[in-house]
Amino acid sequence: MKKKMKKIAVLGSTGSIGQNTLEVVRRFPDKLRVEVLAAGQNLSLLKQQVEEFQPKAVAVKAEEDARKLRQAVKKTGLKVYAGEKGLEEVVCFPEIDLVVSAITGVAGLKPTLKALEQGIDVALANKESMVVAGPFLKKVAAKKRARIIPVDSEHSGIFQCLNGRPLKSVRKVYLTASGGPFLRVPMEELAQKSQAEALAHPRWKMGKKVSIDSATLMNKGLELIEARFLFDLRPEQLDVLIHPQSIVHAVVEFRDGSCLAQLSQTDMKIPIQYALSYPERWEAPGNFLDLSEVKNLEFLRVEEARFPLLALARRALEIGLSLPVVLNAANEVAVEAFLEDNIYFGQIYEVVEYCLLRHSPREINTLDEVLDIDRETRKIAREFLKGKVKSR
Amino acid sequence: MKKKMKKIAVLGSTGSIGQNTLEVVRRFPDKLRVEVLAAGQNLSLLKQQVEEFQPKAVAVKAEEDARKLRQAVKKTGLKVYAGEKGLEEVVCFPEIDLVVSAITGVAGLKPTLKALEQGIDVALANKESMVVAGPFLKKVAAKKRARIIPVDSEHSGIFQCLNGRPLKSVRKVYLTASGGPFLRVPMEELAQKSQAEALAHPRWKMGKKVSIDSATLMNKGLELIEARFLFDLRPEQLDVLIHPQSIVHAVVEFRDGSCLAQLSQTDMKIPIQYALSYPERWEAPGNFLDLSEVKNLEFLRVEEARFPLLALARRALEIGLSLPVVLNAANEVAVEAFLEDNIYFGQIYEVVEYCLLRHSPREINTLDEVLDIDRETRKIAREFLKGKVKSR
Repeated sequence: MKKKMKKIAVLGSTGSIGQNTLEVVRRFPDKLRVEVLAAGQNLSLLKQQVEEFQPKAVAVKAEEDARKLRQAVKKTGLKVYAGEKGLEEVVCFPEIDLVVSAITGVAGLKPTLKALEQGIDVALANKESMVVAGPFLKKVAAKKRARIIPVDSEHSGIFQCLNGRPLKSVRKVYLTASGGPFLRVPMEELAQKSQAEALAHPRWKMGKKVSIDSATLMNKGLELIEARFLFDLRPEQLDVLIHPQSIVHAVVEFRDGSCLAQLSQTDMKIPIQYALSYPERWEAPGNFLDLSEVKNLEFLRVEEARFPLLALARRALEIGLSLPVVLNAANEVAVEAFLEDNIYFGQIYEVVEYCLLRHSPREINTLDEVLDIDRETRKIAREFLKGKVKSR
Repeated sequence: MKKKMKKIAVLGSTGSIGQNTLEVVRRFPDKLRVEVLAAGQNLSLLKQQVEEFQPKAVAVKAEEDARKLRQAVKKTGLKVYAGEKGLEEVVCFPEIDLVVSAITGVAGLKPTLKALEQGIDVALANKESMVVAGPFLKKVAAKKRARIIPVDSEHSGIFQCLNGRPLKSVRKVYLTASGGPFLRVPMEELAQKSQAEALAHPRWKMGKKVSIDSATLMNKGLELIEARFLFDLRPEQLDVLIHPQSIVHAVVEFRDGSCLAQLSQTDMKIPIQYALSYPERWEAPGNFLDLSEVKNLEFLRVEEARFPLLALARRALEIGLSLPVVLNAANEVAVEAFLEDNIYFGQIYEVVEYCLLRHSPREINTLDEVLDIDRETRKIAREFLKGKVKSR
C-alpha cells in the first residue's frame, strides 16, 4: 500500500521559517506535498517556490501582486488569492493535513484560528497568535480535535520532554535563551545599540523582527506567555535560563526532582521537521549533535536590569488578562520603529512600558476584543512615538 | 476509596541502594509498604530495619545468622529464611507488587529471575544479572508481563527519555560517566593507585564494588551491556560520554537530530523513587536542580588508554555470546582481590583480559550455561591470581 502523503499549507513561505520548511519538504518528497503557499511581498521568491513545488493555491498580501501573479501563471490552473480574506481561503483548501503557521506578528492569528476551526492540525511558528489569543486557540483546537504542534525550538523542546506526561507531574519548565548579541556588552552602551548590532544574533539566523526581540529578550518573554497557554502551565512554573550555546532548548523539571531536557544543533530545520513528521520522526541528513565537540554547556540566571523588557513580559504573564495583547502590540510597533531607524534601541522598552501603564487590564471574552485592544494599543504606541523621533 | 499500598521486597536492604530505598519508603508511608527484606551479613542493621519497617519475612545469607535472628524475633511472627533458597522464597511472598533487586554481583540473578517468573515487577539495581542473562530476563518478563524498571541513574535516564517511543526512532544512546577519581591523574601513576584512592568517588556515594568499577570505568562497560539488553539496542548505538558533574545521566539521540537528556542532582534516591513510583511521579522533599547554580556542564570523549577495562567491555558488548558473562565474573574476582589488597589497581585489567582471552566465545542457550561459565571463569581468575599476589 502506498503511504499517504501529508498535504501541507505553508503560510509565510518566503520568510525564514517558511524557507526552512520548504527545505525540509525537499528532503521528503515522498512524504510531504505542498498544496498551498502564502507569502507577503516577496513575489520573486514566491514565484520560484510556485515553480518548484507546484501548489494548487497561493495567497499574497496585495491585490496588485495577486493580479501580477495570476497573469504569470495563467496556464497552470494555480489559484491565486489576496489579502486577509485570501489567507483564510487558502487554509481551507481541500484535503490540507497540516498548516504551517509562520507569518510573523498578530497577522498570523486569523488564518491559524481558521485552520483549527476546520479541524486541521497546525504547526505553530507564529508565537504572537498564541500570546494574544492562546485560550481561544486552545479551546477551538480541543473542540475540533486539531493538534497544535509547536515549531519554536523551545516549545518543541518542552513538547518533546512532556510527551503526553500528566501536567501534575511537572514542577517547573525552563526555556533557554542564548542571551542574544548583547549578553555581555557594557550596560551603559545598550540604549544606543545600532540596528546592525541588534540584528547580529550569535546563534540563530532568523527574521528581523525575531532577531530584535532576541536582542531585547522580549522574544523570551513572548515565549513564556506562549508556553503558559500552549501547555496549560501556571506563570510561576515558567522560567528562563541564559544558555549561550543554544544547544539545550528547554528543560522540564518533574516534581520528583528528575529533569528532561531537549537538545540539538542550532538549526531551525530540526524542530520544523519534527512538527512536520509528528508523531513520527524521520531521518535527518546530518547535523547531529556531538556533545564532546560542544564540550561545555553554560547556564546563567538572567540579569533583569540588562533585559528590562523580559521583566515587563513577566508581569504581563503573571497578571494576564489583556496585558499580553498590549505587550505584543506595543512591542511590534516599537520594533518596527527601531527597524525603520526612528527610535533608539533603548526606546523599544519605553514604548512598551508606556502602553502597558496606560492600559486598564481587563478580561477578554471574544476574539474581536483581542483585535480591538491590539488596534487601540498600536494607535497609542504610534502617538507616543510621534514625540520620540530620533535625532539624526 | 483508599488507594492501594504498593507492597515491596527489598533485596540487599543493608547495602547502599537498599538503604536509599528505605529512605524513600520513609517519605511515603501511605504509598509504600515493606513486606520483605533480604540482606547479606550486616545483621545489626537488618535488625534495626526489621524493627522499623515490620516486614512479614526476611532472608539472610547464612543459616547461622538466620537462627540468631529467629531467636531474636520469636514473638513477632516474622518469617526468617536463609541462603540462596531463602532468597527465592521471599521474592515469592504473597502479594508483593515490586521487588527491588539490589544485591551486588551475579548473586542477584536468581531472585530477580524468580520474581519475573512470578509476574512481579522488578526495580533493577543489580546490573550484573542483566549483563550475564539479559536476554533470559527480558524473555521471561515479556512472557509474564512483568516490568523491569531500571534503578541505575543512567538506565533510569534512558528509560525516561525513551518513554515508550519506538526503537526505530532512536539513533544513539549516550551514558555519561563522571570519570571517577582517576579522570585526571597522571597515567603512569594509575597502576599503583591505592584502595582508599580508588574508593574516593568524587560524585556518588556507593558500595565498594561499584566504586572500584567506577574508578576503572568497568562500571560503564557493564552499563553499556545492561543498556543493550534492557532497551534492545545495537552495540554500535551505545556510547559513553565523560561528564564530570554527573548531572546529565543519559542522552538519547533520535534519528531526526533531536536529543533528550535526563538530568538531576547526584542523588540515588531520585532514580530509586522514580522506580518505586513508576508510572507515577511523587513529590520529592527537596534537592531540586538549579542549572544556574551548576553553571557548567562539561562533556569529554573517553580516553581509552586511561580506561582499558572499558575498551575490553566494549569488545564483549560487540562480540556478545558468552563474553559478557566472562567479563563480569573475571571482574568480580579481580575487584574482590583488589579490595582484599591482594593485587594492584592496574592488575584488575590483567585478570579480566586473561580470562577473556582464554575463553572460547559460544552461544548461551540456558541459564545453567550462564552459571557454568560464571563458575568456570571465577576458577580461572583465581588460579591466575595465585601467581600474582601483591608484594607488600
